Amino acid sequence: MQWCRFQLGDEISFGIVEADHVIAIEGTPWGPHTVTARRHSLTQIKILIPVVPPTFYCVGINYKDHIIKSAQRKGIEPIFPKKPDIGYRANNALCAHEEPIIKPADSGETFQYEGELVAIIGKQGKKIPKEKALDYVFGWTIGNDVSERTWQRGDRTMWRAKNADTFKPMGPWIVTDQDYRKMTTIIRLNGKEVDRFATSNMIHDVETYIAEITKYITLYPGDVIWMGTDGMPQNMTAGDVCEVEITGLGILRNKVIAES
Amino acid sequence: MQWCRFQLGDEISFGIVEADHVIAIEGTPWGPHTVTARRHSLTQIKILIPVVPPTFYCVGINYKDHIIKSAQRKGIEPIFPKKPDIGYRANNALCAHEEPIIKPADSGETFQYEGELVAIIGKQGKKIPKEKALDYVFGWTIGNDVSERTWQRGDRTMWRAKNADTFKPMGPWIVTDQDYRKMTTIIRLNGKEVDRFATSNMIHDVETYIAEITKYITLYPGDVIWMGTDGMPQNMTAGDVCEVEITGLGILRNKVIAES
Repeated sequence: MQWCRFQLGDEISFGIVEADHVIAIEGTPWGPHTVTARRHSLTQIKILIPVVPPTFYCVGINYKDHIIKSAQRKGIEPIFPKKPDIGYRANNALCAHEEPIIKPADSGETFQYEGELVAIIGKQGKKIPKEKALDYVFGWTIGNDVSERTWQRGDRTMWRAKNADTFKPMGPWIVTDQDYRKMTTIIRLNGKEVDRFATSNMIHDVETYIAEITKYITLYPGDVIWMGTDGMPQNMTAGDVCEVEITGLGILRNKVIAES
Repeated sequence: MQWCRFQLGDEISFGIVEADHVIAIEGTPWGPHTVTARRHSLTQIKILIPVVPPTFYCVGINYKDHIIKSAQRKGIEPIFPKKPDIGYRANNALCAHEEPIIKPADSGETFQYEGELVAIIGKQGKKIPKEKALDYVFGWTIGNDVSERTWQRGDRTMWRAKNADTFKPMGPWIVTDQDYRKMTTIIRLNGKEVDRFATSNMIHDVETYIAEITKYITLYPGDVIWMGTDGMPQNMTAGDVCEVEITGLGILRNKVIAES
């Protein structure tokens, strides 16, 4: 099943996506809701980010190839994380499918995509055992963890390197009843494939992260966990179109534009 | 003026605090709202965290004494941040005035308070000049940035060291029309004063942070910025009561209890 969040006129709703149209619901996909009679063509509506998360979790480094290649670039030995220490991103940075990624005027050349699987939490939980972790995932979407590497290296935190406005495209929708272990992530820059990896090729998998986070932290419906990226991202410049596809989930597409 | 967020039965409202009672409003303090006829004694209501922030910003190290004393403890030279790089905390960790701080079963001895001034954003802004920054602050409240130091040192991020459930007491209410440069922060453990500092004795002040953040990031109404702590926090154990007072704002009081 495919769920989206959309705007038509002034009204914002969640909806069920079927083929070329959406059926509006009242309520939330993961909570009590009723299906309305409002049915719109996908061409009529504006797709919004599929959820405004109460907390926005993000795995920094979770794929071996990405760590090895980043280390090679820096001329250092790769260090793999021994524990699933979760990190955070900020809601201000979220932008929807087909919205522009705005490259700040003073950002540098190493302005890069990172295609990521996103788990969307569907019910509240704490101390969730690993074997039940996926029961707490409502569905999946796609994220692009846009990163400015000069700031990432030079700043004490990743506030602007990864959280400047529009640096976190997410969407286009939430897909349920999919097995993330069977997905492939494909990244295209201006239509050309630049990366492809098995989505589940993680150092610490989704279940491990959920079990570890909830030892100390309550997860709530709508929370998102971005699962990290593999491969070696390339630079993007103004005018570039970046697509992150995850098989079974769809394509998240955003054009880079220069800050005016 | 004093604003709070409170619960009575199943209903959650913002309200105006006057002496020993609260007058409920419909809407938000920083947005369109109407004052209702509902008036309750403060003893009748449950005080909630004064806002659920869209984004939860937090300054890590922003007072010289704190940095010097932390460095002395570790036997290293103090390093002062040259730039106002902002950080983040997580909403799951927020807890209200008089709610317990739950010390996790496997946490260590160095479980500490950090008393902090909290700026609450009242209107949306980007590229805010320093001299107009305080126009975007709706009011002020108090935060306690509870920290587990073993995890803070050993983990790759501060996810559980500073963001475990209940580690972020905030409240009791929001006070407007106060000059933060004239405030004093006082911390008491079991009624005994353990720290006192000029709230404005910051390395980078509130105006500087707001100007810097909004070079890249849009601030939204309800966002909070925790401004860091001074001094050398002491350990808390189960049964301890921690009070953070900021003159003109009130007292944030929380008891530590052991995780059962």
